[in-house]
Amino acid sequence: MSEYLNFNIRSRDGNARLGELMTVHGKINTPVFMPVGTLGSVKAMTVDLVERAGSEIILANTYHLMLRPGVGVIEKLKGLRNFMKWDGPILTDSGGFQVMSLSKLRDLSEEGVLFKSHIDGSKHQLTPEKVINIQRSLDSTISMPLDECPAFPISKELAAKSMALSMRWAKRSRISYESREGYGLFGITQGGIYNDLREESANALIDIGFEGYAIGGLAVGEGQSLMLKVTEESIRFLPQEKPRYLMGVGMPLDILGAVKRGVDMFDCVLPTRLGRTGKAFTRFGTINIRNSRHSKDPRPLDESIDCDASRNYSRAYLNHLVKSNEILGSILLTWHNISFYQDLMSKIRFAIKDNSLDKFANKFEEEWNRGDIEEEY
Amino acid sequence: MSEYLNFNIRSRDGNARLGELMTVHGKINTPVFMPVGTLGSVKAMTVDLVERAGSEIILANTYHLMLRPGVGVIEKLKGLRNFMKWDGPILTDSGGFQVMSLSKLRDLSEEGVLFKSHIDGSKHQLTPEKVINIQRSLDSTISMPLDECPAFPISKELAAKSMALSMRWAKRSRISYESREGYGLFGITQGGIYNDLREESANALIDIGFEGYAIGGLAVGEGQSLMLKVTEESIRFLPQEKPRYLMGVGMPLDILGAVKRGVDMFDCVLPTRLGRTGKAFTRFGTINIRNSRHSKDPRPLDESIDCDASRNYSRAYLNHLVKSNEILGSILLTWHNISFYQDLMSKIRFAIKDNSLDKFANKFEEEWNRGDIEEEY
Repeated sequence: MSEYLNFNIRSRDGNARLGELMTVHGKINTPVFMPVGTLGSVKAMTVDLVERAGSEIILANTYHLMLRPGVGVIEKLKGLRNFMKWDGPILTDSGGFQVMSLSKLRDLSEEGVLFKSHIDGSKHQLTPEKVINIQRSLDSTISMPLDECPAFPISKELAAKSMALSMRWAKRSRISYESREGYGLFGITQGGIYNDLREESANALIDIGFEGYAIGGLAVGEGQSLMLKVTEESIRFLPQEKPRYLMGVGMPLDILGAVKRGVDMFDCVLPTRLGRTGKAFTRFGTINIRNSRHSKDPRPLDESIDCDASRNYSRAYLNHLVKSNEILGSILLTWHNISFYQDLMSKIRFAIKDNSLDKFANKFEEEWNRGDIEEEY
Repeated sequence: MSEYLNFNIRSRDGNARLGELMTVHGKINTPVFMPVGTLGSVKAMTVDLVERAGSEIILANTYHLMLRPGVGVIEKLKGLRNFMKWDGPILTDSGGFQVMSLSKLRDLSEEGVLFKSHIDGSKHQLTPEKVINIQRSLDSTISMPLDECPAFPISKELAAKSMALSMRWAKRSRISYESREGYGLFGITQGGIYNDLREESANALIDIGFEGYAIGGLAVGEGQSLMLKVTEESIRFLPQEKPRYLMGVGMPLDILGAVKRGVDMFDCVLPTRLGRTGKAFTRFGTINIRNSRHSKDPRPLDESIDCDASRNYSRAYLNHLVKSNEILGSILLTWHNISFYQDLMSKIRFAIKDNSLDKFANKFEEEWNRGDIEEEY
């Protein structure tokens, strides 16, 4: 069943891979960054701007969409892509993470999870089968199976128990998933920070067979070095020929580190969330545009990025917009931040092809750590 | 001095005029609607979307910009157009209206007006000369002189006294204004609802000489019929060959009524302000997209408008965005509302050329009053 989502590796540089993931809704060049569109909208963006920023796939959240507006509405309007007018592929997460982090009351059993909505307290149940059905109704290009996402830190005993449950759910998910050409279902490895559990999880998933493999349960507070260490170890157990997705990661240096270790896909709320609070990514690190040192600053955010928001507007204007609570401040900073991430991914892809990823990564890290230079105006 | 801003009347239909106002920053087809960009941003819009909606000129507020970010910053960044990256012409109001409606303490004298900022209570003075200088620093295409905007209702005696002061200020404004090719200064008639005062005001302004004439002091609570009556009477005293601007008006039927009476220019916060509160203009009147009857509604807002926001998104999606407080809800509704207004102006201009304005206005009013039809889904 793995023929339904072709993944072609075009080039390698160390463990890093340059690839193409062929979906029914378009081609995805990997390593890829997926902006997060939780409720069917990449926050503060039009789909046109998301695309202009260089995005080829976005992520949406099953948990959020099942609560608002409800799956029935989206199905009636011919799926999430048509609902939100995004032409490209969509990956939807399973809701497992949100059930753990957002909902008020949880009752976990072999069957699935009962929880109360964080919005109105209404009760809902998620089972592996139901989650697959929801994603089918959303017409998701890439679906993710329900998993249990334990908090960090967790003992090895509990991590093993939780991972085993997630693997049984993965099996049920695969069975209830209806394969279609150009669509795919990914497996999610669990096992916390325990290498042998990650191996056991990977083997269980490979036995079942998926169109791609995600590394779950990271970016939950373990820190960058541990995150990269677990990623490096986990990835050795995953098949070479399938895409690998590191869920919820991360900052630019996290992404660079993970690409070097063989990760192909990323999603993270940071560029959008920080964009709405006045923070901008630049190649010299992040800046807070609210800071008064930018109030007369004629420089753009980062003239090296091919995006109107990055190079055409002065920091003085953006400082004014953000301080005045103008919505345009959120729009321009988010647009810039997504463009910054997509520019980084584009440069990473070029460097892999060019066999110069280490050199690029070193230069990027050096500039990033230099910090933004304060100038006088 | 009236050669600096050429106005060509190309066609007439009754008292309505189809014109072209030639400015240094581009041509404006009249009758024209100017979206409001109070703080140097048409709220929730990128300049690209403002332009795509069909806007040829925008309005910005001198009072707001002098308080935030301050005129010095904008001047240093080469004027407001460059600051906000709007390529077309800009009209800036004088701040007179905002001083009256927003500031906390006012001390009016022959010299000007002292007031406290509505933001931080800091004290500021506006004089006719200072207001002209500020607009010069902003590089405004069309400047407006400081005037006193009395509240409605007002006695004839007070209206006469106030109008006389505004006329003396208009004279001082003209003297301090430095004429430049393609830029212009408009006069503002005052006199409340009193016909003979409006005549006296118009004559005083004509004696001074301006590139255009505004009707001020309306849309302050007097109601549509009185507003149109005063507009109709006031306009008879204004020169035929100059553009006429009805400040702060209005709803679509207000604009239609005023165009029929010979008004060429309009500004109003309604399409932007209502767009941020879930209200949308349609040819069948306004609708509140928050209303649950739209929660499963596959229809677009108004498929007759050539705008993505108007015809590509379902009301169900917009309902979901607005109820979920997604910024995209404000973006799409504002974009649609501005497009709706610009579409109306475009149809008005076509009807004037076609000598069918009355017919168009009757049809528009009939559809508008029909209301949006509720359907079952």
